[in-house]
Amino acid sequence: MKIKFTALVFMLTFVQTTLANTAEVAVQHFPNPSTVSQALQPLVSGEPPSFWNDHPKTNSEWHQWVDTIAAQTLKTLPMLKERMQVSVTATQLGNVNAFMVTPKTIAPYNQNRILLHFHGGGYVLNPGEAGTAEAIMMAEYGKINVISIDYRMAPDFLFPAAVDDALTAYRELLKQYPAENIGVFGTSTGGGMTLALMLNAKAHDLPLPAAIVVGTPWTDLSKTGDSYFTHEGIDNVLVSYDGWLGDAAKLYAGDHDLKEPLLSPIYGDVNDFPPTLLVTGTRDLFLSNTIRMHLKLRDAGVAADLVVLEGVSHAQYLMVSDAPEAQRYFNEASQFFDQYLAN
Amino acid sequence: MKIKFTALVFMLTFVQTTLANTAEVAVQHFPNPSTVSQALQPLVSGEPPSFWNDHPKTNSEWHQWVDTIAAQTLKTLPMLKERMQVSVTATQLGNVNAFMVTPKTIAPYNQNRILLHFHGGGYVLNPGEAGTAEAIMMAEYGKINVISIDYRMAPDFLFPAAVDDALTAYRELLKQYPAENIGVFGTSTGGGMTLALMLNAKAHDLPLPAAIVVGTPWTDLSKTGDSYFTHEGIDNVLVSYDGWLGDAAKLYAGDHDLKEPLLSPIYGDVNDFPPTLLVTGTRDLFLSNTIRMHLKLRDAGVAADLVVLEGVSHAQYLMVSDAPEAQRYFNEASQFFDQYLAN
Repeated sequence: MKIKFTALVFMLTFVQTTLANTAEVAVQHFPNPSTVSQALQPLVSGEPPSFWNDHPKTNSEWHQWVDTIAAQTLKTLPMLKERMQVSVTATQLGNVNAFMVTPKTIAPYNQNRILLHFHGGGYVLNPGEAGTAEAIMMAEYGKINVISIDYRMAPDFLFPAAVDDALTAYRELLKQYPAENIGVFGTSTGGGMTLALMLNAKAHDLPLPAAIVVGTPWTDLSKTGDSYFTHEGIDNVLVSYDGWLGDAAKLYAGDHDLKEPLLSPIYGDVNDFPPTLLVTGTRDLFLSNTIRMHLKLRDAGVAADLVVLEGVSHAQYLMVSDAPEAQRYFNEASQFFDQYLAN
Repeated sequence: MKIKFTALVFMLTFVQTTLANTAEVAVQHFPNPSTVSQALQPLVSGEPPSFWNDHPKTNSEWHQWVDTIAAQTLKTLPMLKERMQVSVTATQLGNVNAFMVTPKTIAPYNQNRILLHFHGGGYVLNPGEAGTAEAIMMAEYGKINVISIDYRMAPDFLFPAAVDDALTAYRELLKQYPAENIGVFGTSTGGGMTLALMLNAKAHDLPLPAAIVVGTPWTDLSKTGDSYFTHEGIDNVLVSYDGWLGDAAKLYAGDHDLKEPLLSPIYGDVNDFPPTLLVTGTRDLFLSNTIRMHLKLRDAGVAADLVVLEGVSHAQYLMVSDAPEAQRYFNEASQFFDQYLAN
C-alpha cells in the first residue's frame, strides 16, 4: 500500500460521495506468498468470486442467484466424491432433510461415533447436495460417518427456521447416539450454526456433544469486529461485509435484531460449552469473528484451541481438497474429535 | 479502503518511481473498534510512533535514536514499578548484565520457580532498564521472580552477541534452578530470542525449560510471511517492515543470512521444544511470524497454544499495564507457566 495518505483521503472522499448501491471496495493485491502451499497459491493470489458484490433484491432474484452458484458447486461434487471415495445418501433426521456421508473405510475407533455437519453459505447458499463438500472431505480425512443437515434457508424460511432444524436434527441424533459419541462441526455459517446449536441445546436441557469444530464461524451477523474493517479488500473470498454477505444477514434475520444470540452466538452464554477447536486464516474477513469467540470461550473456562492458517482468506482451506491447508484443517479437526469423543 | 483499484495501480506506479529512501506507506485508519477495551482504544485508534519510519545511517545516529527512545521509556518506569510494587535490581548472570525483578508477594507455588525474560526492540532498542517493563508486569501479574537479560545489541554488538548472551545467562541459571522450574518468555525480538535460545540450548545439549511464552515473536527477520504485506499500514506500532525494523534486522545480522535459524527461528528444527504459548493480535504485522511458528510447532508435536487479541497491533498488549488486553496476556502466560513448571 505504497500511496500517500493525503491522496488516499481525497480519493476516499471522492469515491464515497459517488457511490451507488454496491460496495466500492478496492480488492487489494499482494505478492504471492511463498509461505502458502503451491496448491493454494492460485486461489490466494486469485480474484474474488464474480458474485461477491451482487445484491439480489427480490426473492426471485435471490433464488436465481443461489441456483446459479449451486449449479457450479454441484458440477464439482462427482469428482470430489470419487476422489474421496465416499457415498452420499439423502436421508432425514426427524423431519429435517440431510445427507448421510459414508467413507469407504471407517476407522475402528470411529465405529460408534457420528459427526453432525452444518454447511456454510450465509443462510442462503448451498441448498441440497451443494452443501455437502465439507462433510465429504471430513468423512474421508477422518474415516468417520458424517451426517450433513440441509437446513431451511432464506429467502423462503427466515430465522429461526435454520436453528430450529438444527435442534430437531440434533434431538433426533441423540436417540441414535449418546451425546459423548457425537461431534458437531461446520465452516462459516456452519460454524455459527454449530455454536447456536450449543446455546439452543443448553436452553432445551439437551446433553451437549463431546466436542465441536468451528471453521471461521459467523459469530457476529452485525458488522461488529475489527477484521470486518481491517481485512476488507484483503480477504478475496468474501471481500467485504457490504457485498452479498450483509444483505444475506439482514434477509435471514428478518425482524430480529442481528445481535440475538441464536443469530450471533458471540452474544450468547458459552458457559459449559464442549471443547472447541476454532480455525481461521491471516486474511480472513472473519478473523475477529473467530478469535472473539475463542477468547470468550477461554474466559468461560472452556477448552478452546485456535489455529490460524497462513495467507488464507475466508474458508479458503476448503477449496482445494488435497492442499496442505485442507489437510491441516481436516486432520486437526479429526484429531480433536478423536481426543474428546467416546467410542 | 474504498478506492478504485485501477486508480490505485496508477498511484502505486507513480509513487514507487518517485520514492526516496524512506518507506512510503499509507497508515490506514479504521472505525474505533467497540470490541477493544476502553483502556486500549486510544492506542488502537492512535497514530504510529513518530519514529516508525526513521532510518538512522551511522552508528552514531543509531545510538542517538536508541537513546532518545529509551529516555522516553525510562520516564514511565517509576510509575509502573510503583503501581506493580516490584523491586528491580541490577545483577549479572554469568558475565551478562541482567535485572532481578521481584514482586512484593511471591505465590507459594512459585517459591522455587524463575522466569527468564528477553525484552523486545529489534536488537537495537531498550538497552538497560528500558527493557524491563514486560518483566515488571509479569512479576506482579504472575507473583513470580523474573530475571530480565540486558543482552548486547547492535550497532555495537552484532549477531551472534545477543544469542550468545542468552545462552550464557541460561547456562548460569541452570546452576541455580532445575530446568523444569524455569520458564522463558519475551515479546517481539524477545520472543524470537526465546525461540532461538531453545535451538541453541538443544545444540549445546542443555536441558530445555519447562515452558516458554512468546508474544508476537520475530521468527523471520527476512520480509517473508503474509502479514508483512497484508498488515502493512494496518499495524500502527511497526507499520511496515520497511520502516526502522528492516534496517535493524540487517544491521544486527551483519554478514549473516537473515534466514539463519538463530536469527530467524522459523527456519530451525523445533522438535522437542517445550510447551509454547504464542500471542498476537488481529492487526499485528507479526501475525504471520506468530502463526507460522505455531503451525510448525504443532507439526512437530509440541504442545502449542495460540491466542489472538482483538484489534491489537504489534506488542500493543504491553502498552497499557492495566488494560484487559494486558491482563489477558500476563494471566494467560502465568497460567501457562503454572501448568507446566515444577515447583
